[in-house]
Amino acid sequence: MDYYKKRTLDFAKSFVLEGYTVAGPKENDGRYKGFFDFALEDDMFGQNTFERAERKMFEHAIEGAIAKANLDDVDVDAVIAGDLLNQIVSASFAAKKNHAGFLGIYNACATFVESLIIGSAMLNNGLENVVCAAGSHFSTAERQYRYPLELGVLRSPVTQWTATGVGATVLSNKQTGKLPRITRATLGRVIDYGVMDVNNMGAAMAPSACDTIVTFFRDTNTKPQDYDVIYTGDLGKLGSDILMDLTRQEGFDVSAQLHDCGASLYWDEQQTYQGGSGAACSALVFNSVLLGRIRRGEYKKILLAGTGALMSPTTSFQGDSIPAITHLVEVSA
Amino acid sequence: MDYYKKRTLDFAKSFVLEGYTVAGPKENDGRYKGFFDFALEDDMFGQNTFERAERKMFEHAIEGAIAKANLDDVDVDAVIAGDLLNQIVSASFAAKKNHAGFLGIYNACATFVESLIIGSAMLNNGLENVVCAAGSHFSTAERQYRYPLELGVLRSPVTQWTATGVGATVLSNKQTGKLPRITRATLGRVIDYGVMDVNNMGAAMAPSACDTIVTFFRDTNTKPQDYDVIYTGDLGKLGSDILMDLTRQEGFDVSAQLHDCGASLYWDEQQTYQGGSGAACSALVFNSVLLGRIRRGEYKKILLAGTGALMSPTTSFQGDSIPAITHLVEVSA
Repeated sequence: MDYYKKRTLDFAKSFVLEGYTVAGPKENDGRYKGFFDFALEDDMFGQNTFERAERKMFEHAIEGAIAKANLDDVDVDAVIAGDLLNQIVSASFAAKKNHAGFLGIYNACATFVESLIIGSAMLNNGLENVVCAAGSHFSTAERQYRYPLELGVLRSPVTQWTATGVGATVLSNKQTGKLPRITRATLGRVIDYGVMDVNNMGAAMAPSACDTIVTFFRDTNTKPQDYDVIYTGDLGKLGSDILMDLTRQEGFDVSAQLHDCGASLYWDEQQTYQGGSGAACSALVFNSVLLGRIRRGEYKKILLAGTGALMSPTTSFQGDSIPAITHLVEVSA
Repeated sequence: MDYYKKRTLDFAKSFVLEGYTVAGPKENDGRYKGFFDFALEDDMFGQNTFERAERKMFEHAIEGAIAKANLDDVDVDAVIAGDLLNQIVSASFAAKKNHAGFLGIYNACATFVESLIIGSAMLNNGLENVVCAAGSHFSTAERQYRYPLELGVLRSPVTQWTATGVGATVLSNKQTGKLPRITRATLGRVIDYGVMDVNNMGAAMAPSACDTIVTFFRDTNTKPQDYDVIYTGDLGKLGSDILMDLTRQEGFDVSAQLHDCGASLYWDEQQTYQGGSGAACSALVFNSVLLGRIRRGEYKKILLAGTGALMSPTTSFQGDSIPAITHLVEVSA
């Protein structure tokens, strides 16, 4: 692995005020049942299209996070958000509800961690409170990226299941009480190992996860043992195995710390095969599970590495392989 | 207009090292002929698809900007870029060529100014050099957002023409010599006045441009006369007229300073009707025209307001109106 420094940032004042999650019905039947702030009874959320349901999930998660943090809409300076739909319309349309500035972002399923990085950077430039959000919806993603749902296409055993959910985090530049902090981050670079199979995104993303995680360790002189857990976004089970092999080749054994948000979302009986994928995975697990464990003192220091596959249906049709990116944040109690 | 403070940022150290532009053949036949660093002979750029041509334009613009700034690829810490294609694949795939971190962003045609804002914020968080880039391609946008080119659909007189081009800017946290600076910025918020006509995006975007520009003046206690020029991104001729009316209602007369990157790109004989649109407009005009005038002392202080329409074909099919956003930067000599 070639190694260049300078992709790791220090954040002097990025405090995690609050997190809020809206989860789909299948997600709330999974391993984290009851962990979410709000669970949908069905994935239409009272709307007449799946896309509008996804948008409403964003509105609800952003509003919920602001309220849970005891803030008003006018206290929020910026919303930094993105989703998997073309032109990130779920996040953009939801942001109509806010008076805050809006920065639309897209790094596929790495979008949530990207939002935390950009949000933290904004706080060091004078903003006081920002909301960082990302999410996805199984039914909108399926019909946009793959096939019409009505076709009932058989799924390959290496596929993952796009999670339905939105997670939103309120970051503040002020320490009030004892808040978890985003202390450091490593920006991901775009890495393409030539994987062509859009049903095997874990394999496409694992080299990028390795690159960012190893770069973070080298930039900061840390090692896996310094962290309670290292959560990747949505490598899935197969992708996680590949990541463990790759990091071992670079001299870092992450097997004791490594977990994957996507792989941990569902029970085996839910037949998602490799686990969850989608921008929702890291947003859901960070805001409802990891944040709680940090606050309760179960974790002192963790790494969250959002993984994203950057292809589109058009690039796949035109014969391009799948580039991937992984952004990482260090969160300290 | 309701008015909330706190959307304006100060940047202590964001210096414009260099700008580079790649323009399409029609753009280089327009009013700025000869201003661009590189002009395509045809819009395929030696590739076998329009999408690959757009990607190559990004690669070329980013590489060109880095070289023109006398830097090497390894000197660049991050590329912050986006485009109009689904999943911003032009920017993402181009970033494979760089060792830098990559932050993918999307705010439609406001993406270039968004990239300058996020880039400037990153420089205040320890990064040394970043490349900010955005662009668009007539033929990829036309077939993705509208109709197959082969259909030869008649265009309405209120339409604009998606510009082909990519502009890239190298920002640095170090002042070397006398460099133009990005001094302040106002984040846009998402505003929707209920315009439904996807062929009249100037009307959809003008209220958002008014909101951001007036907010900047109020946040900073400045007025239009403090600036040599105020360039909007791609309101077009009709949209610019609406903007002048709207700002006048708020007590600011911008008629002497206002120009539009898109409207100024082409000659009337080129039959683009309202002028250019697309993420390329502000990226091309800033990097090849405005930057030069600032360096030569013709302008002391300017405002660049990137305007974006945030709809997608899916939201329009589902009956939603067009939300818009405008991000603004102040550039000082």
